[in-house]
This record gives sequence, structure tokens and C-alpha cells, in this order.
Amino acid sequence: MSTLLIDNIGELVTNDSNGEGPLGLRRKAAVLVERERIAWVGPSFHAPAADRRFDAGGAAVLPGFVDSHAHLVFAGDRAEEFAARMAGEPYTGGGIRTTVGATRSASDDELRQATERLVLEARQQGTTTIEIKSGYGLTVEDEARSLRIAREFTEETTLLGAHVVPAEHADNPWRYVSMVCGPMLAAAKPYAKWMDVFCERGAFDEDQARTILTAGRDAGLGLRVHGNQLGPGPGVQLAVELGAASVDHCTHLDDSDVDALAGSDTVATLLPGAEFSTRSTYPDARRLLDAGVTVALATDCNPGSSYTSSMPFCIALAVREMRMTPAEAVRAATLGGAGALRRSDVGVVSVGARADLIVLDAPSHLHLAYRPGVPLIRTVLRNGVPQ
Amino acid sequence: MSTLLIDNIGELVTNDSNGEGPLGLRRKAAVLVERERIAWVGPSFHAPAADRRFDAGGAAVLPGFVDSHAHLVFAGDRAEEFAARMAGEPYTGGGIRTTVGATRSASDDELRQATERLVLEARQQGTTTIEIKSGYGLTVEDEARSLRIAREFTEETTLLGAHVVPAEHADNPWRYVSMVCGPMLAAAKPYAKWMDVFCERGAFDEDQARTILTAGRDAGLGLRVHGNQLGPGPGVQLAVELGAASVDHCTHLDDSDVDALAGSDTVATLLPGAEFSTRSTYPDARRLLDAGVTVALATDCNPGSSYTSSMPFCIALAVREMRMTPAEAVRAATLGGAGALRRSDVGVVSVGARADLIVLDAPSHLHLAYRPGVPLIRTVLRNGVPQ
Ligand SMILES: [Zn+2]
Ligand SMILES: [Zn+2]
Repeated sequence: MSTLLIDNIGELVTNDSNGEGPLGLRRKAAVLVERERIAWVGPSFHAPAADRRFDAGGAAVLPGFVDSHAHLVFAGDRAEEFAARMAGEPYTGGGIRTTVGATRSASDDELRQATERLVLEARQQGTTTIEIKSGYGLTVEDEARSLRIAREFTEETTLLGAHVVPAEHADNPWRYVSMVCGPMLAAAKPYAKWMDVFCERGAFDEDQARTILTAGRDAGLGLRVHGNQLGPGPGVQLAVELGAASVDHCTHLDDSDVDALAGSDTVATLLPGAEFSTRSTYPDARRLLDAGVTVALATDCNPGSSYTSSMPFCIALAVREMRMTPAEAVRAATLGGAGALRRSDVGVVSVGARADLIVLDAPSHLHLAYRPGVPLIRTVLRNGVPQ
Repeated sequence: MSTLLIDNIGELVTNDSNGEGPLGLRRKAAVLVERERIAWVGPSFHAPAADRRFDAGGAAVLPGFVDSHAHLVFAGDRAEEFAARMAGEPYTGGGIRTTVGATRSASDDELRQATERLVLEARQQGTTTIEIKSGYGLTVEDEARSLRIAREFTEETTLLGAHVVPAEHADNPWRYVSMVCGPMLAAAKPYAKWMDVFCERGAFDEDQARTILTAGRDAGLGLRVHGNQLGPGPGVQLAVELGAASVDHCTHLDDSDVDALAGSDTVATLLPGAEFSTRSTYPDARRLLDAGVTVALATDCNPGSSYTSSMPFCIALAVREMRMTPAEAVRAATLGGAGALRRSDVGVVSVGARADLIVLDAPSHLHLAYRPGVPLIRTVLRNGVPQ
């Protein structure tokens, strides 16, 4: 296997404390890739010999984005529901149940193709690590199938059987919770790394969420929580109590939630695409950062509330709407996402890390927020391989 | 010259009153292109024979976007200024003067390459007609040069010598106004179709703006105005009074401004990218539409206040932030822009119109707002030629 030198990098984001500022910037840098790993990082004038050379032309190079929250295994879309919501009109369609119905009816190949399309779309926009949740099957077979398909695309797979109580269990939600913790977890376990629950009024309450997360932990899965999105609630505290890797949304927090996060290893993952597409108030990233909480940014890509796969778009929103600096937003979209997945081999440019790199069509990471909506990802390298 | 049939269009946006709704939608349609024009539009099952066939695969097809407001002839960028503004920090750099200095110092080739890069970037995102303003030269020679270069890329060129009073005329703005109306207009006229003025406190007042616009009109140029962006002002009324094709920004309007627009042929061009990147309040599109004003959407692409070239991004913002429906936003980005440039050959899909067409990676125009930040433009046809 040959070596590849990425040379003539105008600005390299390393997220390493050896560099300058919060992004560990290096100027006029080069990166040596050997097989799927980074083998050397240093100044361009000092670069080692390599079998091949890629000239970045003075552009900015970053670690690939780590999107730690995406719902990609589903069929159909809900564009009409979106349009009605934006117009402030009542919508009498089925909401999430529409997607559950379409997903259950889809063949394996249809689901696989729909998922692959979104994974490739995200990758083209610089996402080199992506988490994929189930949650539109809501039966033992359909959740296991969703995760089996998700696993074809990523190792970061999450059982979200507890997305919503399906219609057929509406009369007895605890019966559904038992099913999630029992046969569904057993069937999904070979394909799932994480257990997640939507802990929110109208979905699963604190007791149900604790039962679900505890079952996941006992089965050896890592934990993630959807919490405090639509209103105040127990999600954040529960996530911290159970040592979840991440609690996601964090839109409605009180001081004790922020304190709990600040004193924990649980990452707060913010999903501004959801607030954008539901016209809701954005979470207060500034408050979290100022309290010392580790913040991640992710897309929440899903057909109901945030159908974007674009991490650059989320970075631009984070800066405009959540008062993150461009550096904080880029860090949250790379190192932050890695933290939310408890990964140390992605989200950084350092020796031994995966050679997941993006070359921008711009001289600086600032352009990701400065040039909103513009496709600025020129080249994507994943595991050392140009995509 | 051969004919090209674009067939298997799932949803065709025509902006023609023969179709359904405000976008003149047709389902299962086909479009015949002959040389650079549209020769036939109709149902797929009835399509004529053609030399070549392009299968749209059931996707949505739209008229290419008409971006009627862009400042593309400049050198350098102002990413650091943007980052400081977003962080709420004071910025002691030169603002627009930085760009004027860099532009004056650039060679013709450097300016040409910088402009071409942005024109191609916009085209890749579906913009097939673009207006380009001068305004970073601010000398007779540099404005004429900017327009000569702009003319290499578009026929929609605009003299914006009255962008700001340059430092060397700060002691006597009227002296600069005379220069704009006299030698600058004379030198620019061979390359300019439009005359524009930044009518705003801190730039040009009502008398100065009237003088500049009148000189442009007397020289045979069409008129456009930057007005009512930063606060209430006379820009809108002046634009209507002088029969300008468009008044742009329209962020701060009183009732008489809205009435004046509603009773005129002047288009109100909204530029939400500017409010996004300056964290300002968005204009009230709903009020304008409900009053019967013709609204256009454009990017205002420029290095100071809105460095996006993405019409899809502006559509998504218009829906999220200005309460336009997706259909209104798409119409404003196509037919609206054509109106703002007084063009009837673009912004529509009808017989005789230019064959400027975009094929989405989506089944409906709704996805442009529903999937924010995602590059959804699969294919661009300009003057009948795939780009
Ligand atoms: Zn989610
Ligand atoms: Zn402008």
C-alpha cells in the first residue's frame, strides 16, 4: 500500500492542542497518509517523501465531519407536511406514522437504496463518520431490519425503538416499553452499538426512558438520549445519571441541567436543523459553552423535522443563530461529534487517527459560516481513500 | 442543430398560468429544446420525437434561477470581519474599503478569475441568469474596468459607482456624485445596462440618489435602487417615482412604501442572505405579497454582508424567516428575478423562452426549502447546453 502526501495546505484544522487556538490550526502544513491512517503532520517545507502527492492549493483542510445524530433508514418523504407547517396551516396527514407505514412497507432493497443515497449525499458534504438510528420500524422485525441495513453503512448504529409509541400500542405504552427492552433489543443487539430513547412529553416519560436505557446498558450498548427538545424535562438529568455519551437537542434547559452537563462526560449535541425546519427557538449554545459543557453539532437528518444532511449548513446556523464562533462550530462538528460517539480516532488530524479529511474550496474554516449554503467541500478522503 | 427532449419530468415548474397553482405546475411532463430555446412543453405521453433524449427520472424540473442582485467583481475576502461581527466584537478593519483597495490593486486577470469562479459556483447551484454590479472600483477607470469584466459573463451589468463615497471624496460627496454622473457614467456606459445607487443614511441621500438615477436614465440605462435596508428612508419611493425595475432590500418599509410598490411596476427584491450574515431582522415578505407587490429573491452575493451565491439557500431562508410559501419563494427566485430585470425570456418554461432549466435531485420544488443546505441541483441546462 502506498503513501499519500497532502501538501500545500493553507490552513490545517487539527483539533490538537499543539496547534493554534481552539482548532489547533497549523499554517502551510502537510499531512502524510499511510493506508487508512494519518502517519505524519507537520510543516510543508519539512514534509517526508511519499508515493503520491495531493496539492491542496493553499486551501483549508479539516478532519471530516462527524455527524453523531441522523435518522436515515426510512422510506418516503413528508414534503407536504413541511409546506403546511411553514404556511401555519393545520396538517391532517399522519406525521411520523406516515414514515413508519412507508418504512414497514418498503423492501430491504428500497430501504438500503434510500439509506445509501443519504449517506453518499452527506459524504459529498464532508461527513466521514455518521451515526444512523432506527426508529421508523417500531416492530421487532422492522427495527432489527433497519439496524441490519444501517450497519452496512456505519459502525455507529443506534436502536431507537423508543422513538414513539406506535399506534397499535397506544392503549398500553408500557407493553411497548417491555417489547423494546425484551425481544426488540435482543433482535437488534447484533447490529446496534447504541441505545437511544425519545424522552419527551408525548413520547416516553422518565420512568419509561430509564427502563429502556437501563436495559440497553445491561445488554452492553452505549447510551444516547433525545431530551429537552420540545420543553423542559428529565432527559438531560437522566442522560447524565446513566452516563450517556450524549444527550441531544437540549433546547429547553434549566440551570441544574446545565450544571449536570458541565460536571459530566455527557456531550450536549445541538441540532439546529430541527429548529430551522420547525421554526422553533434555537438552543442556547453560548450558555453551554460558557459553562464548560462539551458541545457537538449534528444534522438530525430525518424526513419530519430536519431533512438536511449538511453539516456545513448546521455550522452556519450555529454561528448565526446560536452565537457559536466559527471555530467553536467547526470544533463541535468534528471533535464534538467524535466525543458524542466516544471516538478518539476521528474528528482530529493527528498521528494514528483515521485519514478522514476534507479539502475546502476556501482558504479558511471561517468560510463554512461566512459562505452559507455554498457547496465548499472540494475533496473528501475517507479512510485514506478519495471519495 | 439537433433537438433535445427532456422527458419523464415528475413535476415541471412553468410559472405559466396554464399550469396548476402559482408555479404553473405540470405533472409527467416533457420539454423540447431546439437550439437555445424551448420549442414545446406538454405531457410526456404526447412528446414529439427528438434527436436526443434526457431522462429526468421523475424528478422536478424548474426554470433556472434568476439572481438579479450580485456584486461579483472584487478581489480578496473579509472572513475575519465576518467572524468578528458574529462574535459581537468590534472590528477595526477597513470594511468595504478593504475590498475597494484589493479590487483596485488586482490585475484584470485576477478580477476576471475571481468573477468567473463565482459565476460558475452560482451556475452549479442553478443560477442561469445573473446580474453583476460594479461598485468596488469607485474611480472612473476601475468602475469601467469592473463592468467590462462583468460583461464577459452576463448582459445584466449594473453601474454601482454610487455604492459608497470613497475615502478620497469624503470631504465633498457631491463632487463624487458629479463624477459618477459625468465621466464615470460615460466610461461605463458601453458595458452597463443598469444604473444603481445605494440610497441609505451613510451612503447617498435622496437628492444625490435622484441625481444619479436621473443621469443614468438620461443616458439610456435602466434603473435599480438599494433602498430601505438599514432603516426607513426615501429609496423605495424614489425607485417607484423614477420607474426603477427593482428596489432591493426593502427591510424597513412603512405603509406608504408598500402602497407605492403595490401601485407600480417596480419589483421588491428581497435579499435574506444579507440579514442572515449580518444577524439583522428579515424583511416582511408576507406583507408585500399580501399587498400584491411583485417580490423577487436574490443573493446579494458580496464579500461584506452576504457572501452566498446560493439561490436554494435564499429560498430556504425565505420560507423559514420571511413566511413565504415554498411556491412563492421558488416563483420569486425565477419569475420574480426575471421581472426585476424586465426579462420575459427567462424565469419561465414556455415556448420561445430560453432553454435555461434545472433538474433537481428531488421529486418536487418543495425540497428546495424542505432540505436546506443540501446541494439538490443535479443538472443545469443554459441556453440549451448542459453545464
Ligand atoms: Zn433525532
Ligand atoms: Zn447589494
